[in-house]
Amino acid sequence: MTYCVGLKIDRGLVFMSDTRTNAGVDSISIFRKMYTWEEPGERVLVMLAAGNLATTQAVVSLLDERSKAPAERSPSILQTPSMYQTARLVGNTVKEVIASSAPTGQNADAFGASFILGGQIKGTEPRLFLIYPEGNFIETSEDTPFFQIGETKYGKPILVRAYEPTMTFAETAKLLMVSFDSTVKSNLSVGLPLDFLYYERDSYKVGYRKRIGHDDPYYREISDGWSDALKSAFKRLPDFQE
Amino acid sequence: MTYCVGLKIDRGLVFMSDTRTNAGVDSISIFRKMYTWEEPGERVLVMLAAGNLATTQAVVSLLDERSKAPAERSPSILQTPSMYQTARLVGNTVKEVIASSAPTGQNADAFGASFILGGQIKGTEPRLFLIYPEGNFIETSEDTPFFQIGETKYGKPILVRAYEPTMTFAETAKLLMVSFDSTVKSNLSVGLPLDFLYYERDSYKVGYRKRIGHDDPYYREISDGWSDALKSAFKRLPDFQE
Repeated sequence: MTYCVGLKIDRGLVFMSDTRTNAGVDSISIFRKMYTWEEPGERVLVMLAAGNLATTQAVVSLLDERSKAPAERSPSILQTPSMYQTARLVGNTVKEVIASSAPTGQNADAFGASFILGGQIKGTEPRLFLIYPEGNFIETSEDTPFFQIGETKYGKPILVRAYEPTMTFAETAKLLMVSFDSTVKSNLSVGLPLDFLYYERDSYKVGYRKRIGHDDPYYREISDGWSDALKSAFKRLPDFQE
Repeated sequence: MTYCVGLKIDRGLVFMSDTRTNAGVDSISIFRKMYTWEEPGERVLVMLAAGNLATTQAVVSLLDERSKAPAERSPSILQTPSMYQTARLVGNTVKEVIASSAPTGQNADAFGASFILGGQIKGTEPRLFLIYPEGNFIETSEDTPFFQIGETKYGKPILVRAYEPTMTFAETAKLLMVSFDSTVKSNLSVGLPLDFLYYERDSYKVGYRKRIGHDDPYYREISDGWSDALKSAFKRLPDFQE
């Protein structure tokens, strides 16, 4: 499996993804699931991928290739006029890859993949989309300001409770680390290192990017600190009376 | 779906289950998923059920009926000599019901159900089992002292972190309410009221039993208090430094 989160805050967009892929528990590898396209001053696009690794890599390769030889397919991901058109382009590429993986009426579910796509194109607002294996997609709203893909359940309660649109990037980094740590502690199919990236609105360049490994001192501090904080928060809750 | 937890602590056994059943989101009902058999001074058995409601009700009805007319099937659930034999009896009944629901080689998955069975029979130790739709089962150990069935993921992180074998019953009530509240807040298919029960070892009677509704003041206090406690614990964690 996989765990990826994309968050929209007032200041911009924040992304985190794990790197574990597995085919069964005895075939584990590390693959980056965060992809970026950047034209400084013009556009920044960030994509997180979950699902069949062959599908997600094919989608990214096609998007990449076509941006380098735009004659082949126009507009490329570096030329789309809006984030909405970018999401459509990605969605169509996903459909194309999945259809060609299951050409003879095979069950396409095995080739499925979902994506979180966020970014900003000069002259438009930052936007964040969730793209389904069927190629259609939804966008964040005030009520649903973040998307998760992969093993989403363990890390959801803290996101639901602690997210605020006015958060700083440092606070969202903390929030995402807690959400990922809860997931990693509960599910073998999600694993470190993590990729973290944030984009500040109207900056048109990647603001910060870091790979967080097992030995990352801040991650360790959060992981241990959150266990202790939960235990003592729990202790302070009022006791049950029969 | 459903969410049920059975916990083994030094003092005995603790159980909690929700009551929501659904066939799609537009067909929601309330059903008890906690069943007890009690012979004061002799044995207490508690069973929690998740999965196909027709299957779980059939299993319970058969176990009940056969305990009232034991000639039909011996030993009945009130006569088994050990908790291990009780788990076998329940497992065989599950297999029997599922097999008769899918007689013509239909996919039996749709009729699946899982059970948590705990209790104590005079002269033996309290034991807690997880029974699979296939009828086989596993037992808790020191390393895995609790079982969850149904929508298990949202409520697992707090159980993993805050469970201690030396907990009191009041503390386990608090722990389970936090775990259930996290689940209810994240997933529509799990809903109040909750059934809570604990069994004190060597007492051979149900120790305490309560149905917890939306208006339960302690549940409200925990639900609100835990949100606040999480938020302030989160705030106190050290900030991320680039």
